[in-house]
Amino acid sequence: MRRFRIGVLFFVLAALALAEEGKWTPQQVLQIDPTWLKQQGLQLPALKLWDPKRGTGLLAAAVALPGCTAAFVSANGLILTNHHCLFGLIQEHSTTDNDLITNGFIARSREQELAGKTTRITVPRKFTDVTKAIEAAIPAGVNDLARLKAIEAKQKSLVAECERTPGNRCSVAAFDGGLQYTLVEGFELTDIRLVYAPPRAVGEFGGEPDNFRWPRHTGDFAMARAYKDGKPYQCEFFYPIAKTGVKAGDFVMLMGYPGRTFRSMTADEMANERRLRFEMAKDVFGEWIGLLEQTTKGSAEGTIAVSVMLKNLNNTHTNAQGQLDGLERGKLVEKQRAADDAVVAWAAGRAAFAGALAAKQDLEKLAEARRATGARDYLYGVIGTGSVALREAASLVRMAGERAKADEEREAGYQERDWIRIRAALARDTQSFYRPSDEAILSSWLRRAQAEKITPAVGRSALDLFRGTKITDPSERLKMFNESLDQLRARNDSMLNLALALEPELRAWRVATDTRDGAIARLRPEWRKAVIAHAGKPVAPDANSTLRVTFGHVKGYSPRDGVMYTPQTTLAGMIEKSTGEEPFAIPRFILDAARTAKTREIPLNFMADTDTTGGNSGSPVVNGRGELVGLNFDRPWENVANDFGYNPDVARNISVDVRFLVWLLEDVQKADFILKELGLK
Amino acid sequence: MRRFRIGVLFFVLAALALAEEGKWTPQQVLQIDPTWLKQQGLQLPALKLWDPKRGTGLLAAAVALPGCTAAFVSANGLILTNHHCLFGLIQEHSTTDNDLITNGFIARSREQELAGKTTRITVPRKFTDVTKAIEAAIPAGVNDLARLKAIEAKQKSLVAECERTPGNRCSVAAFDGGLQYTLVEGFELTDIRLVYAPPRAVGEFGGEPDNFRWPRHTGDFAMARAYKDGKPYQCEFFYPIAKTGVKAGDFVMLMGYPGRTFRSMTADEMANERRLRFEMAKDVFGEWIGLLEQTTKGSAEGTIAVSVMLKNLNNTHTNAQGQLDGLERGKLVEKQRAADDAVVAWAAGRAAFAGALAAKQDLEKLAEARRATGARDYLYGVIGTGSVALREAASLVRMAGERAKADEEREAGYQERDWIRIRAALARDTQSFYRPSDEAILSSWLRRAQAEKITPAVGRSALDLFRGTKITDPSERLKMFNESLDQLRARNDSMLNLALALEPELRAWRVATDTRDGAIARLRPEWRKAVIAHAGKPVAPDANSTLRVTFGHVKGYSPRDGVMYTPQTTLAGMIEKSTGEEPFAIPRFILDAARTAKTREIPLNFMADTDTTGGNSGSPVVNGRGELVGLNFDRPWENVANDFGYNPDVARNISVDVRFLVWLLEDVQKADFILKELGLK
Repeated sequence: MRRFRIGVLFFVLAALALAEEGKWTPQQVLQIDPTWLKQQGLQLPALKLWDPKRGTGLLAAAVALPGCTAAFVSANGLILTNHHCLFGLIQEHSTTDNDLITNGFIARSREQELAGKTTRITVPRKFTDVTKAIEAAIPAGVNDLARLKAIEAKQKSLVAECERTPGNRCSVAAFDGGLQYTLVEGFELTDIRLVYAPPRAVGEFGGEPDNFRWPRHTGDFAMARAYKDGKPYQCEFFYPIAKTGVKAGDFVMLMGYPGRTFRSMTADEMANERRLRFEMAKDVFGEWIGLLEQTTKGSAEGTIAVSVMLKNLNNTHTNAQGQLDGLERGKLVEKQRAADDAVVAWAAGRAAFAGALAAKQDLEKLAEARRATGARDYLYGVIGTGSVALREAASLVRMAGERAKADEEREAGYQERDWIRIRAALARDTQSFYRPSDEAILSSWLRRAQAEKITPAVGRSALDLFRGTKITDPSERLKMFNESLDQLRARNDSMLNLALALEPELRAWRVATDTRDGAIARLRPEWRKAVIAHAGKPVAPDANSTLRVTFGHVKGYSPRDGVMYTPQTTLAGMIEKSTGEEPFAIPRFILDAARTAKTREIPLNFMADTDTTGGNSGSPVVNGRGELVGLNFDRPWENVANDFGYNPDVARNISVDVRFLVWLLEDVQKADFILKELGLK
Repeated sequence: MRRFRIGVLFFVLAALALAEEGKWTPQQVLQIDPTWLKQQGLQLPALKLWDPKRGTGLLAAAVALPGCTAAFVSANGLILTNHHCLFGLIQEHSTTDNDLITNGFIARSREQELAGKTTRITVPRKFTDVTKAIEAAIPAGVNDLARLKAIEAKQKSLVAECERTPGNRCSVAAFDGGLQYTLVEGFELTDIRLVYAPPRAVGEFGGEPDNFRWPRHTGDFAMARAYKDGKPYQCEFFYPIAKTGVKAGDFVMLMGYPGRTFRSMTADEMANERRLRFEMAKDVFGEWIGLLEQTTKGSAEGTIAVSVMLKNLNNTHTNAQGQLDGLERGKLVEKQRAADDAVVAWAAGRAAFAGALAAKQDLEKLAEARRATGARDYLYGVIGTGSVALREAASLVRMAGERAKADEEREAGYQERDWIRIRAALARDTQSFYRPSDEAILSSWLRRAQAEKITPAVGRSALDLFRGTKITDPSERLKMFNESLDQLRARNDSMLNLALALEPELRAWRVATDTRDGAIARLRPEWRKAVIAHAGKPVAPDANSTLRVTFGHVKGYSPRDGVMYTPQTTLAGMIEKSTGEEPFAIPRFILDAARTAKTREIPLNFMADTDTTGGNSGSPVVNGRGELVGLNFDRPWENVANDFGYNPDVARNISVDVRFLVWLLEDVQKADFILKELGLK
């Protein structure tokens, strides 16, 4: 099906400009001009990638792990993914005496494979358009809050119905903000056994200092096998290991389950994200990071207690900085505004899109309303990530409120099945509580809350709140868990009192958020209709954790004037970085194996301009023949804002080169059992 | 004259391998295969570069400034060099009201040019081989110390004779350690007037953080005019501004006065430099930097007092680290050893080179002897850069010893003409003395001296030395300056006593050093004869501040795996780096002028693999037609060890692109007067 109805020259220019942008759904691959795909380097017919009649194809050899992607690489269910995606499985079998995390693991026969308890994968089976069913479930004339609840309820019931088939794992995914809803039917394999893990020093080589960075030298891969009914799972589709590796300019495709992107937002909505998410995070978390560092200086106890919180704050803070830099570098908001304006101008003369234009105006009104309350909303939102004591108080108050309802009336996350988890978290909190740090963070929150006129914060001091509370006493806290709102009130505990006073505001904020989401679910599809019609060719929808494929080429980029990041690194670079100290400590046996000049040229990591985001960790990277050439594991710093817009100058992802994997298995670890199955022995 | 007597294929390979190595003397240019030079990109006949009959040529348009190089760029004596090379001249005319350093300067007519007091240039006139005269001056059978003194005396007398011609500025340069001595006759122009200086923010853009770094965006250039007898100096040779700039791969030549390199050392001598100069500097200065930082923490007085010393120590320490890294990266000592061994193997069967082999063995014995005393010698050497109080005491004791002699017997630097300078330094020292820092440095020196069995250091503590001295009292110190050794002894001052006890050891060390230098002057030429004969083609001698030319191409390099430094930067990069704060603050009028996309593409700096060292600052970089395309001002960090060996992977120098200069003069500063003279208006 040809959808490009434009002249040849313009087509070529447009194709060049857009070549690598887009996380395509399997169905969309068949809408893309096959000549163009061939020119890019695809040597297989598109129908081999996806057969719409059967609802499957080579793309389905990419399977979902929670938060990650994995790939079948043999007919007997051998799975390749990132080391960090199988870390839980490795950890399960790691003991002080048999430290698999540090030493790695090699199964030398099927019997040696290590079964796990928690790892599961989902293999895609069927995609069904359920848009009509969802729309039919929305009562006529309801308000936006009711609309959201109706959509959510219908989604839940469709999922429940689908999961009645044993082994099924289903979800309803919204595309283009609800323009289309798809029931994604997959089946879950729960018997996943560890086959190979490199030493952590290889799998996590470079650690935090190299995270998000190029040049990169990380062997971030591991292998497992899926079993069904006690036998290796027989898969119809898998990616054989490529006999020849890639070089600069080579075509690659990348399959996987990208989590979430924001490219269908209007410019105003993006600008809101910039200000109300990233700039706020930079400001608030930047201050809190400083407070944690100051208050724990010289205290081993304090340093340990706040370490997880500090890491999380740092992650968010660093990410926010990257998003802000990338939005600025790519002028993404400005480009989106120009794109919005072009659609508006085009639609203005077309009666069919009057609704789209009205929807756009309403989206902008919502964005404006959000701006008015954004700073205050942000402070409500970070109660869950700031002071431990305030978070606990808020959680206890909300729990007490929900407990008073019937279970099916309770908010998600506060139903009876969630209680064990909530109680465990309250018990565990003691580990991460350090009074001087918590007091400083709470002070900061109170000061900011007062400035934003959050009434319950006015006149309270963190010191007084801590003096008048028993919430920091673990046994008292667990007692509180079982108490009603009246009992909590009767305690006259200063921290609980603050939470009780905040709860009506928080409830109103949650309702407002849900109402806005309901409105967006109504408006966004209308507006996207115009955007897609204006494009006149397939437009990839935002990522939503469903199976996607992206096409691109092995390619470096220039991070700044006078510097070029070349697209491939080698073992030589890993050895250069090796200091003997974590995270740059390569085990001696690998250093020894890497002595010869020829070995040092083994390719280790490469970049391509395929279009990825979180969830693509472990995504297979294959050549034009569908053979595995690499395994995606990261994207460089300059590309963090990719979620808002594809900037071809810096849109790159980073993969482990399969030649490093083969070298490690073959020359270093003599993993014959695995190599035979991969057809390499 | 064709000197390559080898087959074509081998010639091509050898030429490729050696293309860019070598700072050639003007005479050597005529010995290089003209076909090869043409292949490289030279479009002029070699005789145009240098006419041996006249002893001049286009190369002579490069003139010497103290520590720098400059280039004539018009027939009327207009000179182009680095901003930092003309800084003294700019400073002379800079006042609070008329701050030329900050604002820059543009002469809009000859009358506006600003005459200076101290800037002088030397134009090369004639090169005479005086090897025979020097050798004849060495009495037969003298020891090595007397040999050194005889050579030095003859050099002095040749220079004095040459400088009898008014305006002459002469020197005797040793090539290949004394294989050839050349009397270099130049004439000095002392009326140098400032014509153009950019604002310091352009001329020093990037400052310390960017020093030695790529990517670079520094407009390090300024212009002056040489006058003779009150009229613009008429020069026969100059480099016209190129109409088209360079791009990657283009041929360039670079002329100048490189100061000193160490490539004719044997591998053992290089290994000694590595250990006894750079590793020692890393160790000792690394400790002292830490001590200065600790002892001045929180003290404004201390911080100011030690700032110059700290800067000097940091420079040496950073340079040492660069040398060590570069020696390791290029495996320079190992390569030198292989080269030495090849010459030894070749010479072994040739009776004519028996003397060369013996000389090599003797050089190695000297190197071995130096190793035995190296750490101790280093501590003697750093008395002049460490504790201010000890340095003063040593200087006063030496001064008293020398004063007792007749003036012509006194060591260089301690003759009557030097006394004012020494006395001024002693008076000035108060500014850079901060007791806690000085005591810490002295403690470190004493501890190290004791470990090296420097007897006078044994049993002394820095605290006691400071308690028992009056040397830190400025007026007492100036009194001491006039006293004899007996008077100094009679003071029984603890610091002077240490210096008095050290002086015999220091004297013995100076004699040993001179003796070794005399031996090297005897041995090195013998050994170099074999090296040059073995090469069978011209071999560029080590730099010695005489006029040289180097051939190369515009070229980037890879500083590490996965990264390529591309060879050109643009104005866009300067703007990207601009923070508004020194040293990244570009004046507003330049930012304004750089608004258009086309302007931002103006080339700013470029790299080439021409072979440079200190002294090449301000060297003209010209294309194959002899037209100026750039102005050398730095080399990147990875190339610091270039003085020991040319590593083609990283041997790069950094130049200002002449297109930036033209843009600044033409589009921004409308400097029509200068542009007309440059033929650009």
